[in-house]
Amino acid sequence: MANLCFIGLGTMGYPMAGHLANAGHTVSVWNRTHSTAQQWSSEYQGSAHDTIAAAVKDADAVLLCVGRDSDVRDLMCREACILAHARPGTLVVDHTTTSSTLAQELHQLCQQQQVDFVDAPVSGGQQGAINGQLSLMVGCDEAVYAKLVELTQPYTKAIERMGAAGAGQATKMVNQICIAGVLQGLSEGLLMAQKQNLDINKVVSVISQGAAGSWQMVNRHQTMDADDYDHGFAIDWMRKDLGICLDEAKQLGVSLPLTALVDQFYAELQNLGKGRADTSALLHRMRQLNPDQ
Amino acid sequence: MANLCFIGLGTMGYPMAGHLANAGHTVSVWNRTHSTAQQWSSEYQGSAHDTIAAAVKDADAVLLCVGRDSDVRDLMCREACILAHARPGTLVVDHTTTSSTLAQELHQLCQQQQVDFVDAPVSGGQQGAINGQLSLMVGCDEAVYAKLVELTQPYTKAIERMGAAGAGQATKMVNQICIAGVLQGLSEGLLMAQKQNLDINKVVSVISQGAAGSWQMVNRHQTMDADDYDHGFAIDWMRKDLGICLDEAKQLGVSLPLTALVDQFYAELQNLGKGRADTSALLHRMRQLNPDQ
Amino acid sequence: MANLCFIGLGTMGYPMAGHLANAGHTVSVWNRTHSTAQQWSSEYQGSAHDTIAAAVKDADAVLLCVGRDSDVRDLMCREACILAHARPGTLVVDHTTTSSTLAQELHQLCQQQQVDFVDAPVSGGQQGAINGQLSLMVGCDEAVYAKLVELTQPYTKAIERMGAAGAGQATKMVNQICIAGVLQGLSEGLLMAQKQNLDINKVVSVISQGAAGSWQMVNRHQTMDADDYDHGFAIDWMRKDLGICLDEAKQLGVSLPLTALVDQFYAELQNLGKGRADTSALLHRMRQLNPDQ
Amino acid sequence: MANLCFIGLGTMGYPMAGHLANAGHTVSVWNRTHSTAQQWSSEYQGSAHDTIAAAVKDADAVLLCVGRDSDVRDLMCREACILAHARPGTLVVDHTTTSSTLAQELHQLCQQQQVDFVDAPVSGGQQGAINGQLSLMVGCDEAVYAKLVELTQPYTKAIERMGAAGAGQATKMVNQICIAGVLQGLSEGLLMAQKQNLDINKVVSVISQGAAGSWQMVNRHQTMDADDYDHGFAIDWMRKDLGICLDEAKQLGVSLPLTALVDQFYAELQNLGKGRADTSALLHRMRQLNPDQ
Repeated sequence: MANLCFIGLGTMGYPMAGHLANAGHTVSVWNRTHSTAQQWSSEYQGSAHDTIAAAVKDADAVLLCVGRDSDVRDLMCREACILAHARPGTLVVDHTTTSSTLAQELHQLCQQQQVDFVDAPVSGGQQGAINGQLSLMVGCDEAVYAKLVELTQPYTKAIERMGAAGAGQATKMVNQICIAGVLQGLSEGLLMAQKQNLDINKVVSVISQGAAGSWQMVNRHQTMDADDYDHGFAIDWMRKDLGICLDEAKQLGVSLPLTALVDQFYAELQNLGKGRADTSALLHRMRQLNPDQ
Repeated sequence: MANLCFIGLGTMGYPMAGHLANAGHTVSVWNRTHSTAQQWSSEYQGSAHDTIAAAVKDADAVLLCVGRDSDVRDLMCREACILAHARPGTLVVDHTTTSSTLAQELHQLCQQQQVDFVDAPVSGGQQGAINGQLSLMVGCDEAVYAKLVELTQPYTKAIERMGAAGAGQATKMVNQICIAGVLQGLSEGLLMAQKQNLDINKVVSVISQGAAGSWQMVNRHQTMDADDYDHGFAIDWMRKDLGICLDEAKQLGVSLPLTALVDQFYAELQNLGKGRADTSALLHRMRQLNPDQ
Repeated sequence: MANLCFIGLGTMGYPMAGHLANAGHTVSVWNRTHSTAQQWSSEYQGSAHDTIAAAVKDADAVLLCVGRDSDVRDLMCREACILAHARPGTLVVDHTTTSSTLAQELHQLCQQQQVDFVDAPVSGGQQGAINGQLSLMVGCDEAVYAKLVELTQPYTKAIERMGAAGAGQATKMVNQICIAGVLQGLSEGLLMAQKQNLDINKVVSVISQGAAGSWQMVNRHQTMDADDYDHGFAIDWMRKDLGICLDEAKQLGVSLPLTALVDQFYAELQNLGKGRADTSALLHRMRQLNPDQ
Repeated sequence: MANLCFIGLGTMGYPMAGHLANAGHTVSVWNRTHSTAQQWSSEYQGSAHDTIAAAVKDADAVLLCVGRDSDVRDLMCREACILAHARPGTLVVDHTTTSSTLAQELHQLCQQQQVDFVDAPVSGGQQGAINGQLSLMVGCDEAVYAKLVELTQPYTKAIERMGAAGAGQATKMVNQICIAGVLQGLSEGLLMAQKQNLDINKVVSVISQGAAGSWQMVNRHQTMDADDYDHGFAIDWMRKDLGICLDEAKQLGVSLPLTALVDQFYAELQNLGKGRADTSALLHRMRQLNPDQ
């Protein structure tokens, strides 16, 4: 069992840190809003700290799950933050979805201090975090991978080392790009179904196993049909991710026409007050533009 | 066992008619190119006719699986064709993907002759036709549905009555619209993966079970990665179908921005000589526009 | 001076026929709604007929300005219509915007009766028709062009023979495609200007003479800024024209991604009740999707 | 006459600084590549400096015309740069196209040193710079505008104060957005014209005065028809500008679907080796996707 530090107790990090504590590790947590850390330490075996220094000190590994590139950079590099306190040999695991550029930068910076940095964004959503059934896409040196697999086992269903630093984030980008296409196509398909008074459940039951089938079709058609988007992965976060995709594509000299277009559709949904809604709300937008007469 | 007439022995119809013959029905076939009908009758128990009149005469049911709206209309309505020879009580089953408008027109026309018309487009591809594992989306009167289920059982894995005349075709349109979105998104995702030198098999293994997952991702990523599109559902046929989608959307007053855009991308693939390639060749187009430096 | 028949007294045809009458020609008119023809004949020197036969009989030239391909085809080919009554040597001038395919078909059909068919769609709008300042894009045999120029002189500012039958319509398509791009770009530009509280008049005064400048910018920025679209060229007609563009592009094997997308945006404007609004209402759509907070 | 410092002797800045010298001002120049500054000082009355400090010292006004936000920020804020040497009362005029956010930041920063900062991006291209016929879109305090007008008079055809700091840049963004739409529409229109063998000169002569007309149509149709793009405003710079547009739109919460799409098309042109080509090369891309058979 190890001394672990977990930073960022949001909808994902909170249960993830809990799985580590339940597995018998000694877990120190820190969260921007300290009361959440205190709540966590009342629910799980582990200690809440009000400074990063205190949380990181003595940790064999530091795990992060926060919001944006700038959050991760600040937590890692600012005065009195992780890199100021991590001992040589510490493993730093970033579960945040960030740019792979950031992951590469931090990997280099950590290397100078004999700290191992791993980018390990996750998929599986809040449900996956609660059930300990996440998928991890990992970018790291080969030498640290076995340690990572063991460490994250309590909340991981599938894990894959995709390559060196940044490769985990690159894979997460692929994931988000695919989702954007699936969802706009699904929204147009379901719109046509609704406008022709087809029974959406019947439609999905007959087409979801074939060439048109997708996770989103199977798992979201009922809520989409009910115009219910109070769940799932928020558009505000999706725009952050698509912004990273489009920036990295620009640096790589790659065009992503559909991704760029759907990103603008999501901007429109934010304007329509749906920033907190699930990404499947692309159908909501289509219905605003195609109201029933 | 019944007297059946099957019209249209293409990649789909040929094995479908075969399943009916193997099930013990008396099957008469007709095909525009007569030699294909003769070949069929040498492979299966059944008779090849060189006129539609001869094939249709005495049939309890006539099944069609041809190309376009105009083909179906001609075969049904032209002089000396199906409606000129079908007896009252005949069941006509159209497995062609057509507009639902055509299905509704033909349903009405047949009704005047006491003929039952059913639109029953299929999905499952050539492999599904050969293995007798097709999915049927059906538009018909409730009264004839049970007869249809029994009749098509030899090549059907799933069947669903979607509503009255035209509802089967409407459902097929939903299917094709969803595919268009999935595939352009998948193409952009895989392009990003390739440009970052990720191992496509690993990428798919880690993301295909989650929110980005789709039938196309699971079944097409390897051929897409290999730039191999000599299989599957041809772009030329997809454009026919998307043309129907966009026409029906216009009549319904529905906008389909992504579908319209991907339809134009397919036009470009036709121009690039890929009209016979699988619909997943959208990645091929993206690679032409993003060549390796 | 000649005996002329003018068919179709809409916003364009009404004043055009008037210019011919004012120029001293003997003009017979026919209109689907006969009362409009009667009103015309009370305003201008000329006779209103209630059958096409009566209007066409004795005409040296027949001019049409109606709505759609199907209207032109019916008026030309149906029983008791133009071709049934036109004498050899008659010049038929179609000012309707149609497909060039139709123009080519009708040209061939007319040739068999020694009738000369000319496609001559116009631009310049209602104001141009009233002021006799239209631009004509002409497809015809070289031999009849001089006669056409003389005949249409009363309402024409610019005329150009673009090529053989259909070339006039092909040119009109180019015109409409260019408009679609200009207007969506202009709408996005003005939206950004509005959202940053720039004075639209100042913006246009400083950029309209340069690389961003366009007729639409100069002539529509004030009404767009005022969200006023009760004028100009209706979206319902634009969709008809863009439909022709996209159909002809498909036949030619040409992709038009932006045109296809803007056509869908216009579908959304029709759904939002703006089918009669000017084509510049693309900004109205953008504002629905980007409301002020 | 004043003591002026001009920084950035590119295709625009070089002749602009020359006009100031020719007008009788005392001009000190600085350029990243010093030899260009020396060449300038051999062609015009004025002195080339190899440090910014030397160039800025004693200047009543400092004018910049460089490349990117980061260039301007560095030149203004880095050690031993403009703000380190500008005296209170100096007027700093930035002719670079940058984000309006940068302009606002620099305005604030300058204010603290009693320096007046003006954003004044230009349009008119290299030709306009050489002929002294540029258009200036200005963001500044009202108090300094008169001084600016007088100062820039030697190379200015039109000048407009658009509002406070950043408003000049905001206006330039509107300009670039409009251009993107015009050019993709024009490219699709001319492609259709080419594919139908229309004479492009005739097409433009008949449609350019009407609703489809634009500066780009009039000034670029011949080079576009000849597939010649070795002139004008480079795609690499356009992508920089569209990147600013899309970033600012994201901050404002504004969607720009067409702009985002055309930006991706330009990425494809960069990939096709056309980064230095004129922005009208969108037709070149369309022709790659629609080759002659």
